Amino acid sequence: MRIAELSERSGVARATVKFYLREGLLPPGTPVARNQAEYDERHLARLRLIRALVDVGGLSLAAVRGVVAAADDGALSAHEAFAVAYRALGAGATADTAEDVAEARREVDAWIERRGWTIDPDAPMRTALATALATSRRFGFPGLLDAADGFAALLGPIAASEVAFVEPGGPRDRMVEQVVVGTLVYEQALLATRRLLLEHESAQRFGAP
Amino acid sequence: MRIAELSERSGVARATVKFYLREGLLPPGTPVARNQAEYDERHLARLRLIRALVDVGGLSLAAVRGVVAAADDGALSAHEAFAVAYRALGAGATADTAEDVAEARREVDAWIERRGWTIDPDAPMRTALATALATSRRFGFPGLLDAADGFAALLGPIAASEVAFVEPGGPRDRMVEQVVVGTLVYEQALLATRRLLLEHESAQRFGAP
Repeated sequence: MRIAELSERSGVARATVKFYLREGLLPPGTPVARNQAEYDERHLARLRLIRALVDVGGLSLAAVRGVVAAADDGALSAHEAFAVAYRALGAGATADTAEDVAEARREVDAWIERRGWTIDPDAPMRTALATALATSRRFGFPGLLDAADGFAALLGPIAASEVAFVEPGGPRDRMVEQVVVGTLVYEQALLATRRLLLEHESAQRFGAP
Repeated sequence: MRIAELSERSGVARATVKFYLREGLLPPGTPVARNQAEYDERHLARLRLIRALVDVGGLSLAAVRGVVAAADDGALSAHEAFAVAYRALGAGATADTAEDVAEARREVDAWIERRGWTIDPDAPMRTALATALATSRRFGFPGLLDAADGFAALLGPIAASEVAFVEPGGPRDRMVEQVVVGTLVYEQALLATRRLLLEHESAQRFGAP
């Protein structure tokens, strides 16, 4: 297909497609004439992935470049490519250098070790959980890691089936897209459902004037 | 206590305490001499609440003012004060005017209605869930509201016990602080636990090169 059709089928504006080509995020098409190239389904899949990373994941172009490069790297296992995406999605977890956060981080690392989970040593979710643990203590909330054990027991089977939903033999771009979009939309649904539940429970318990 | 002790016990810098006094977020102390006032435990509780809203909730001063005013308003039930806080915390949920989001919003409203939940018609989590639903469809993910039903079944008992953790007869500032911090730190723990689980499951299933 020509660039006009690629733009139409992907829903990505032609100028944006050209920008991704110039930036090397989208590989060049096959030249068919002077100033004309032919694109195929792989270009469509790549555009879907880029839009998922930008629109759904909120990633910067630099972060998109890293995820796309990992998806293209045949030497990486699918999981290693996913781990690059997980890390990019969690980059918002800020490093807090307070002493209680550092102490909480050591506890989180030991907790993950005890659970026997295979997690990147630099995974931003280690920091995110440590920050939550330190904050809970500053405000006198007990047992956040016990609560996390409870969450893991509840969510374990769902997480397994979510990951199993990713089509193993499919194109790498499609797999990474499924991981990124699946991680984020079910997370948003989980959060929204929890907050709606809390508001409803609060109305039941504290609604009387 | 004098302002120096109030600053020390709350961990809030003296200049910041004075700023909150000028802004009316912190009520004035009892005058005891020219340019001197006496503060008490209620001032400490208010400072804790303000810091929870700013540092943990990431709220703007304008939003803090709204939550604090609701906490002070004796005509509101505790739940109505909490609902102001819930709404402020969810203000990041952006209104997307796309047609598929509007359609998803109607489905979310009907879903909440079917579940019999008492939820503010303007609650930002309605929009957040609708946005997730529309995004999931754009990328071909099935049954997000079915997944939300599953999340509700899993989280219902936890949400009930979380809300029950709020001390009913306590000072309003303390109750709102518990609702805000509790909502956010357990949410962060829930998210981090889910993402760690996904990364671990991915390593198990897709880790081979």
